[in-house]
Amino acid sequence: MRIVAEIGSFQAWTHANLQRIESVLQRVLPGPEIAPQRLHQAMRYAVLGGGKRVRPLLAFAAGELAQAESERVAIAAAAVELIHAYSLVHDDLPCMDDDVLRRGRPTCHVEYDEATALLVGDALQSLAFQLLGEYRLAEDMQTQLEMVKLLAAASGSRGMAGGQAIDLDSVGKSLTVPELEFMHIHKTGALIRAAALMGAHCGNGLDEKEFARVDQFAKYVGLAFQVVDDVLDAESSTATLGKTAGKDAKNSKPTYVSAMGAAQARELSRELRNNALAAIEDFGERALRLRQIADFIVLRKF
Amino acid sequence: MRIVAEIGSFQAWTHANLQRIESVLQRVLPGPEIAPQRLHQAMRYAVLGGGKRVRPLLAFAAGELAQAESERVAIAAAAVELIHAYSLVHDDLPCMDDDVLRRGRPTCHVEYDEATALLVGDALQSLAFQLLGEYRLAEDMQTQLEMVKLLAAASGSRGMAGGQAIDLDSVGKSLTVPELEFMHIHKTGALIRAAALMGAHCGNGLDEKEFARVDQFAKYVGLAFQVVDDVLDAESSTATLGKTAGKDAKNSKPTYVSAMGAAQARELSRELRNNALAAIEDFGERALRLRQIADFIVLRKF
Repeated sequence: MRIVAEIGSFQAWTHANLQRIESVLQRVLPGPEIAPQRLHQAMRYAVLGGGKRVRPLLAFAAGELAQAESERVAIAAAAVELIHAYSLVHDDLPCMDDDVLRRGRPTCHVEYDEATALLVGDALQSLAFQLLGEYRLAEDMQTQLEMVKLLAAASGSRGMAGGQAIDLDSVGKSLTVPELEFMHIHKTGALIRAAALMGAHCGNGLDEKEFARVDQFAKYVGLAFQVVDDVLDAESSTATLGKTAGKDAKNSKPTYVSAMGAAQARELSRELRNNALAAIEDFGERALRLRQIADFIVLRKF
Repeated sequence: MRIVAEIGSFQAWTHANLQRIESVLQRVLPGPEIAPQRLHQAMRYAVLGGGKRVRPLLAFAAGELAQAESERVAIAAAAVELIHAYSLVHDDLPCMDDDVLRRGRPTCHVEYDEATALLVGDALQSLAFQLLGEYRLAEDMQTQLEMVKLLAAASGSRGMAGGQAIDLDSVGKSLTVPELEFMHIHKTGALIRAAALMGAHCGNGLDEKEFARVDQFAKYVGLAFQVVDDVLDAESSTATLGKTAGKDAKNSKPTYVSAMGAAQARELSRELRNNALAAIEDFGERALRLRQIADFIVLRKF
């Protein structure tokens, strides 16, 4: 009880780290007055002012576990969030999900135009890697190059972009649960996993075995995140989500809800949470924030 | 005369390095049998089998000057070429230039589909940075992180993607020559400059002053490249170019030809070539390949 009180509440921790990540994103995005202005304004529109920042919070929690300096973790977390933000901008384009609402506001191509939104996504991806080349993030530079490789692999054709391709290909099909899992391990899982590992790489407080535990934890959390997303998409209102609800069914996309029903999907998300918590059990009190984030992800909104 | 004979002809040098870059690109692109197959096939379609590989050749020439190992330069050159290839795929999309022909074949979104072409570009960009994190390229890792930053900055909103945004914004406008120059320094110049510097970073044979000379050379070559491109677009046939000719005029895009006429644009390209050659004069015979590439770029097809 006393330890928890000293560490501070999850709310206070989250609040402090959300401020930290917003301030870094504000700073690393080129100012709206810098040419080409419209592109820079659109990049800021796409990244700032909204988003749950789940990936940065995961990076901060893993970074604390690895005894990393929070300034370093904040940059690594910003890189991951820039990749996430770019993927949303491209995912919302007419040739992809063709969506008009994101974080309670018009999507980037609606507020600006399609060509600008395309370039916004492209330039946000470049900016993510620029941060990894520009700032000192890890104790040794070999580890920092490892972070470049890790984020790139998680973003690319065998990670997030590959997951999007599988997603496109699955429209109108009914997938089995293992097929769904394969898709989501790529589409959302890879970047969530990268977020935790990027945070952990900023410190040197974890040995190889402990690092593997964080990895295992993040894999389960990533899948749980997607299962919860599917349930929320099926059961929530657009107003609550801040993005268009029910669009999976409308777009004939296979989901955990369509594959197993909402009740079983909810049950699966709880199982995945338990697996995630089991993976970090041996850390004891040191993994408090990771446990709280797992709960935050799985228990949100239902 | 004897030195030149020993070094071998430009044709032989080009041939050997083109084989080298093709073989590296073949190897680093995921195989067509790896899931998601369609995405990987489309990535290979967009990158392999065509292209002048001007940027890789520039990287090889600068790498030789810096006494770099050619295996390292080949990876750095592949990273630059992947960025270039992604930019072409996105540039050809309907919301951008809406072009159907590239390197004598249907563009990626015509051969596959728009969503796949979008993801191809995204994943090629990730792959470029993955190479820089994965392979040992420079003598020290600080230099290698510098290369990550350099390529990211050259690709992003204050480099190539920014140039595209300025280009979009200039459709239907008549730009002055300095405004055109500002656009092209970003749109094509940044990546050409990066190609030379990435090659030079792979070795440690250049001091700071010599490095700055290569940079200066590459800036002039990059501009000359664009001026020549404008002339070729205005004066060549689609069959000769392997891409749609006359599209600048059709798309109401300001070019050096529309700003100053073809004869003066041709004259400007020769001036820029002379400036480029002057920048590397002090290297003497060591800069033979760089000089030959400048000629190759400026004197092609007219």
